[in-house]
Amino acid sequence: MADYDPDNIFAKILRGDLPSHKIYEDDAVVAIMDAMPQADGHALVIPRAPSRNLLDMDEATIAPLFAAVQKIARAVKAALGADGVTITQFNEAPAGQSVFHAHVHVIPRWTDVPLKPHTGKMEAPEALAALAEKIRVALAAD
Amino acid sequence: MADYDPDNIFAKILRGDLPSHKIYEDDAVVAIMDAMPQADGHALVIPRAPSRNLLDMDEATIAPLFAAVQKIARAVKAALGADGVTITQFNEAPAGQSVFHAHVHVIPRWTDVPLKPHTGKMEAPEALAALAEKIRVALAAD
Repeated sequence: MADYDPDNIFAKILRGDLPSHKIYEDDAVVAIMDAMPQADGHALVIPRAPSRNLLDMDEATIAPLFAAVQKIARAVKAALGADGVTITQFNEAPAGQSVFHAHVHVIPRWTDVPLKPHTGKMEAPEALAALAEKIRVALAAD
Repeated sequence: MADYDPDNIFAKILRGDLPSHKIYEDDAVVAIMDAMPQADGHALVIPRAPSRNLLDMDEATIAPLFAAVQKIARAVKAALGADGVTITQFNEAPAGQSVFHAHVHVIPRWTDVPLKPHTGKMEAPEALAALAEKIRVALAAD
Protein backbone atom coordinates (compact mmCIF):
# COMPACT_ATOMS: atom_id res chain seq x y z
CA MET A 1 0.00 0.00 0.00
CA ALA A 2 1.28 3.47 -0.87
CA ASP A 3 2.11 6.06 1.78
CA TYR A 4 -0.20 8.81 2.99
CA ASP A 5 0.09 11.96 0.82
CA PRO A 6 -0.62 15.11 2.92
CA ASP A 7 -1.56 17.07 -0.23
CA ASN A 8 -4.81 15.16 -0.84
CA ILE A 9 -7.93 17.34 -1.05
CA PHE A 10 -9.42 16.19 2.27
CA ALA A 11 -6.18 17.06 4.08
CA LYS A 12 -6.44 20.51 2.49
CA ILE A 13 -10.06 20.83 3.63
CA LEU A 14 -9.06 19.75 7.18
CA ARG A 15 -6.31 22.42 7.18
CA GLY A 16 -8.74 25.05 5.90
CA ASP A 17 -6.83 25.44 2.63
CA LEU A 18 -9.88 24.44 0.57
CA PRO A 19 -13.54 25.38 1.18
CA SER A 20 -16.25 22.86 2.04
CA HIS A 21 -19.86 22.74 3.23
CA LYS A 22 -19.20 21.66 6.82
CA ILE A 23 -22.07 20.12 8.80
CA TYR A 24 -20.32 18.83 11.93
CA GLU A 25 -16.97 18.70 13.66
CA ASP A 26 -15.52 17.44 16.92
CA ASP A 27 -12.04 16.64 18.20
CA ALA A 28 -11.80 13.52 16.02
CA VAL A 29 -13.74 14.20 12.80
CA VAL A 30 -15.08 16.75 10.34
CA ALA A 31 -18.27 16.04 8.35
CA ILE A 32 -18.92 17.83 5.05
CA MET A 33 -21.23 17.58 2.06
CA ASP A 34 -19.87 15.45 -0.82
CA ALA A 35 -19.34 17.84 -3.76
CA MET A 36 -20.33 15.09 -6.25
CA PRO A 37 -23.26 13.56 -4.38
CA GLN A 38 -24.79 10.18 -5.21
CA ALA A 39 -28.04 11.46 -3.62
CA ASP A 40 -29.26 14.70 -2.02
CA GLY A 41 -27.68 15.03 1.41
CA HIS A 42 -24.70 12.73 0.65
CA ALA A 43 -22.22 13.53 3.45
CA LEU A 44 -18.64 12.50 4.21
CA VAL A 45 -17.23 11.87 7.67
CA ILE A 46 -13.47 12.46 7.69
CA PRO A 47 -11.19 11.62 10.63
CA ARG A 48 -8.72 14.41 11.44
CA ALA A 49 -5.90 11.89 12.04
CA PRO A 50 -4.11 11.05 8.78
CA SER A 51 -4.53 7.61 7.23
CA ARG A 52 -5.06 6.46 3.64
CA ASN A 53 -8.13 4.42 4.57
CA LEU A 54 -9.42 1.88 7.08
CA LEU A 55 -6.62 -0.58 6.31
CA ASP A 56 -3.87 1.62 7.82
CA MET A 57 -6.03 3.51 10.33
CA ASP A 58 -4.90 3.69 13.99
CA GLU A 59 -7.32 1.76 16.18
CA ALA A 60 -7.86 4.90 18.32
CA THR A 61 -9.33 6.65 15.27
CA ILE A 62 -11.97 3.99 14.57
CA ALA A 63 -14.36 4.44 17.52
CA PRO A 64 -14.90 8.22 17.30
CA LEU A 65 -15.11 8.01 13.49
CA PHE A 66 -17.95 5.50 13.45
CA ALA A 67 -19.71 7.12 16.42
CA ALA A 68 -19.80 10.26 14.26
CA VAL A 69 -21.00 8.23 11.25
CA GLN A 70 -23.98 7.06 13.34
CA LYS A 71 -24.71 10.64 14.42
CA ILE A 72 -24.57 11.96 10.85
CA ALA A 73 -26.63 9.02 9.51
CA ARG A 74 -29.40 9.75 12.00
CA ALA A 75 -29.23 13.48 11.20
CA VAL A 76 -29.40 13.18 7.40
CA LYS A 77 -32.32 10.75 7.70
CA ALA A 78 -34.21 13.10 10.02
CA ALA A 79 -33.27 16.29 8.16
CA LEU A 80 -34.29 15.05 4.72
CA GLY A 81 -37.07 12.60 5.53
CA ALA A 82 -35.05 9.73 4.07
CA ASP A 83 -36.30 6.12 4.12
CA GLY A 84 -32.85 4.67 4.83
CA VAL A 85 -29.14 5.39 4.80
CA THR A 86 -26.37 3.63 2.85
CA ILE A 87 -22.89 3.70 4.39
CA THR A 88 -19.88 2.99 2.14
CA GLN A 89 -16.16 3.14 2.79
CA PHE A 90 -13.66 2.40 0.01
CA ASN A 91 -10.13 1.11 0.52
CA GLU A 92 -7.77 1.63 -2.43
CA ALA A 93 -8.66 2.51 -6.01
CA PRO A 94 -9.92 -0.94 -7.13
CA ALA A 95 -12.50 -0.66 -4.32
CA GLY A 96 -13.69 2.78 -5.48
CA GLN A 97 -11.45 5.08 -3.44
CA SER A 98 -10.54 8.33 -5.24
CA VAL A 99 -9.20 10.55 -2.40
CA PHE A 100 -6.52 8.95 -0.25
CA HIS A 101 -7.40 10.31 3.17
CA ALA A 102 -9.79 7.96 5.00
CA HIS A 103 -13.47 8.91 4.75
CA VAL A 104 -16.90 7.35 5.16
CA HIS A 105 -19.83 8.06 2.83
CA VAL A 106 -23.24 8.61 4.49
CA ILE A 107 -25.91 8.57 1.79
CA PRO A 108 -29.63 9.18 2.43
CA ARG A 109 -31.87 6.83 0.46
CA TRP A 110 -35.48 6.98 -0.65
CA THR A 111 -37.67 4.09 -1.84
CA ASP A 112 -37.20 3.41 -5.56
CA VAL A 113 -34.55 6.15 -5.99
CA PRO A 114 -31.31 4.58 -7.31
CA LEU A 115 -27.94 6.09 -6.42
CA LYS A 116 -26.28 8.36 -8.94
CA PRO A 117 -22.80 7.19 -10.10
CA HIS A 118 -19.97 7.66 -7.59
CA THR A 119 -18.02 10.05 -9.81
CA GLY A 120 -20.92 12.10 -11.05
CA LYS A 121 -21.11 15.80 -11.72
CA MET A 122 -20.36 18.61 -9.26
CA GLU A 123 -23.46 19.77 -7.37
CA ALA A 124 -24.33 23.51 -7.39
CA PRO A 125 -22.82 25.18 -4.28
CA GLU A 126 -26.16 26.78 -3.32
CA ALA A 127 -27.85 23.35 -3.39
CA LEU A 128 -25.14 21.91 -1.11
CA ALA A 129 -25.41 24.93 1.21
CA ALA A 130 -29.20 24.48 1.57
CA LEU A 131 -28.87 20.75 2.32
CA ALA A 132 -26.03 21.39 4.78
CA GLU A 133 -28.17 23.88 6.67
CA LYS A 134 -31.04 21.36 6.99
CA ILE A 135 -28.62 18.76 8.36
CA ARG A 136 -27.04 21.24 10.82
CA VAL A 137 -30.55 22.07 12.12
CA ALA A 138 -31.25 18.34 12.66
CA LEU A 139 -27.90 17.91 14.46
CA ALA A 140 -28.63 20.89 16.72
CA ALA A 141 -32.01 19.34 17.64
CA ASP A 142 -30.35 15.96 18.40
CA MET B 1 -38.38 2.44 12.29
CA ALA B 2 -39.70 -1.06 12.99
CA ASP B 3 -38.66 -3.04 16.05
CA TYR B 4 -35.91 -5.65 16.16
CA ASP B 5 -37.20 -9.13 15.22
CA PRO B 6 -35.22 -11.86 17.06
CA ASP B 7 -36.17 -14.43 14.39
CA ASN B 8 -34.02 -12.87 11.65
CA ILE B 9 -31.48 -15.24 10.07
CA PHE B 10 -28.40 -13.57 11.59
CA ALA B 11 -29.91 -13.88 15.08
CA LYS B 12 -30.43 -17.59 14.32
CA ILE B 13 -26.80 -17.91 13.17
CA LEU B 14 -25.60 -16.12 16.36
CA ARG B 15 -27.65 -18.55 18.46
CA GLY B 16 -26.27 -21.53 16.53
CA ASP B 17 -29.72 -22.41 15.14
CA LEU B 18 -28.51 -22.02 11.54
CA PRO B 19 -25.13 -23.04 10.07
CA SER B 20 -22.58 -20.58 8.69
CA HIS B 21 -18.98 -20.47 7.52
CA LYS B 22 -17.48 -18.70 10.52
CA ILE B 23 -14.10 -16.98 10.12
CA TYR B 24 -13.77 -15.01 13.37
CA GLU B 25 -15.48 -14.34 16.67
CA ASP B 26 -14.83 -12.41 19.84
CA ASP B 27 -16.95 -11.16 22.74
CA ALA B 28 -18.61 -8.52 20.56
CA VAL B 29 -18.88 -9.90 17.02
CA VAL B 30 -19.08 -12.95 14.78
CA ALA B 31 -17.70 -12.83 11.21
CA ILE B 32 -18.98 -15.24 8.56
CA MET B 33 -18.88 -15.72 4.80
CA ASP B 34 -21.79 -14.10 2.93
CA ALA B 35 -23.78 -16.96 1.37
CA MET B 36 -24.60 -14.80 -1.69
CA PRO B 37 -21.24 -13.12 -2.22
CA GLN B 38 -20.68 -10.07 -4.40
CA ALA B 39 -17.06 -11.21 -4.80
CA ASP B 40 -14.93 -14.16 -3.65
CA GLY B 41 -14.20 -13.74 0.06
CA HIS B 42 -17.18 -11.45 0.76
CA ALA B 43 -17.51 -11.55 4.56
CA LEU B 44 -20.03 -10.18 7.05
CA VAL B 45 -19.20 -8.81 10.49
CA ILE B 46 -22.19 -9.16 12.81
CA PRO B 47 -22.37 -7.64 16.31
CA ARG B 48 -23.72 -10.06 18.91
CA ALA B 49 -25.82 -7.31 20.56
CA PRO B 50 -29.22 -6.99 18.89
CA SER B 51 -30.00 -3.94 16.75
CA ARG B 52 -31.73 -3.53 13.38
CA ASN B 53 -28.82 -1.55 11.95
CA LEU B 54 -26.46 1.35 12.70
CA LEU B 55 -29.33 3.79 13.25
CA ASP B 56 -30.56 2.09 16.46
CA MET B 57 -27.21 0.58 17.55
CA ASP B 58 -25.98 1.16 21.13
CA GLU B 59 -22.87 3.31 21.08
CA ALA B 60 -20.99 0.62 23.04
CA THR B 61 -21.48 -1.77 20.11
CA ILE B 62 -19.90 0.54 17.52
CA ALA B 63 -16.22 0.52 18.53
CA PRO B 64 -15.68 -3.25 18.77
CA LEU B 65 -17.75 -3.79 15.60
CA PHE B 66 -15.63 -1.52 13.42
CA ALA B 67 -12.37 -2.64 15.05
CA ALA B 68 -13.36 -6.14 13.90
CA VAL B 69 -14.28 -4.80 10.44
CA GLN B 70 -10.73 -3.44 10.12
CA LYS B 71 -9.28 -6.79 11.23
CA ILE B 72 -11.39 -8.75 8.74
CA ALA B 73 -10.69 -6.25 5.92
CA ARG B 74 -6.94 -6.67 6.41
CA ALA B 75 -7.32 -10.46 6.59
CA VAL B 76 -9.41 -10.90 3.43
CA LYS B 77 -7.03 -8.65 1.50
CA ALA B 78 -4.00 -10.61 2.69
CA ALA B 79 -5.64 -14.03 2.36
CA LEU B 80 -6.90 -13.55 -1.17
CA GLY B 81 -4.33 -11.15 -2.64
CA ALA B 82 -7.00 -8.50 -3.14
CA ASP B 83 -6.18 -5.02 -4.51
CA GLY B 84 -8.65 -3.25 -2.24
CA VAL B 85 -11.63 -3.73 0.05
CA THR B 86 -15.11 -2.22 -0.21
CA ILE B 87 -17.03 -1.77 3.06
CA THR B 88 -20.82 -1.33 2.91
CA GLN B 89 -23.44 -1.13 5.62
CA PHE B 90 -27.14 -0.75 4.75
CA ASN B 91 -29.78 0.82 6.97
CA GLU B 92 -33.38 -0.11 6.11
CA ALA B 93 -34.69 -1.72 2.91
CA PRO B 94 -34.53 1.39 0.65
CA ALA B 95 -30.79 1.50 1.43
CA GLY B 96 -30.29 -2.16 0.45
CA GLN B 97 -30.77 -3.91 3.82
CA SER B 98 -32.37 -7.36 3.55
CA VAL B 99 -31.65 -8.93 6.98
CA PHE B 100 -32.68 -6.79 9.93
CA HIS B 101 -29.88 -7.52 12.37
CA ALA B 102 -27.01 -5.03 11.99
CA HIS B 103 -24.13 -6.23 9.83
CA VAL B 104 -21.20 -4.83 7.86
CA HIS B 105 -20.14 -6.16 4.44
CA VAL B 106 -16.39 -6.60 3.87
CA ILE B 107 -15.79 -7.23 0.16
CA PRO B 108 -12.37 -7.93 -1.39
CA ARG B 109 -11.85 -6.14 -4.69
CA TRP B 110 -9.58 -6.71 -7.66
CA THR B 111 -8.68 -4.25 -10.41
CA ASP B 112 -11.29 -4.28 -13.21
CA VAL B 113 -13.50 -6.88 -11.49
CA PRO B 114 -16.98 -5.39 -10.92
CA LEU B 115 -19.10 -6.48 -7.96
CA LYS B 116 -21.77 -9.09 -8.55
CA PRO B 117 -25.34 -7.96 -7.67
CA HIS B 118 -26.14 -7.77 -3.94
CA THR B 119 -28.87 -10.41 -4.11
CA GLY B 120 -27.11 -12.83 -6.38
CA LYS B 121 -27.11 -16.59 -6.33
CA MET B 122 -26.11 -18.82 -3.43
CA GLU B 123 -22.44 -19.79 -3.53
CA ALA B 124 -21.51 -23.50 -3.34
CA PRO B 125 -20.81 -24.46 0.31
CA GLU B 126 -17.46 -26.06 -0.57
CA ALA B 127 -16.33 -22.80 -2.26
CA LEU B 128 -17.29 -20.81 0.84
CA ALA B 129 -15.54 -23.32 3.09
CA ALA B 130 -12.29 -23.05 1.09
CA LEU B 131 -12.35 -19.23 1.15
CA ALA B 132 -13.16 -19.23 4.88
CA GLU B 133 -10.17 -21.45 5.59
CA LYS B 134 -7.82 -19.09 3.70
CA ILE B 135 -9.13 -16.13 5.71
CA ARG B 136 -8.83 -18.00 9.02
CA VAL B 137 -5.19 -18.77 8.17
CA ALA B 138 -4.52 -15.06 7.48
CA LEU B 139 -6.21 -14.10 10.78
CA ALA B 140 -4.12 -16.64 12.71
CA ALA B 141 -0.95 -15.12 11.17
CA ASP B 142 -2.04 -11.57 12.11
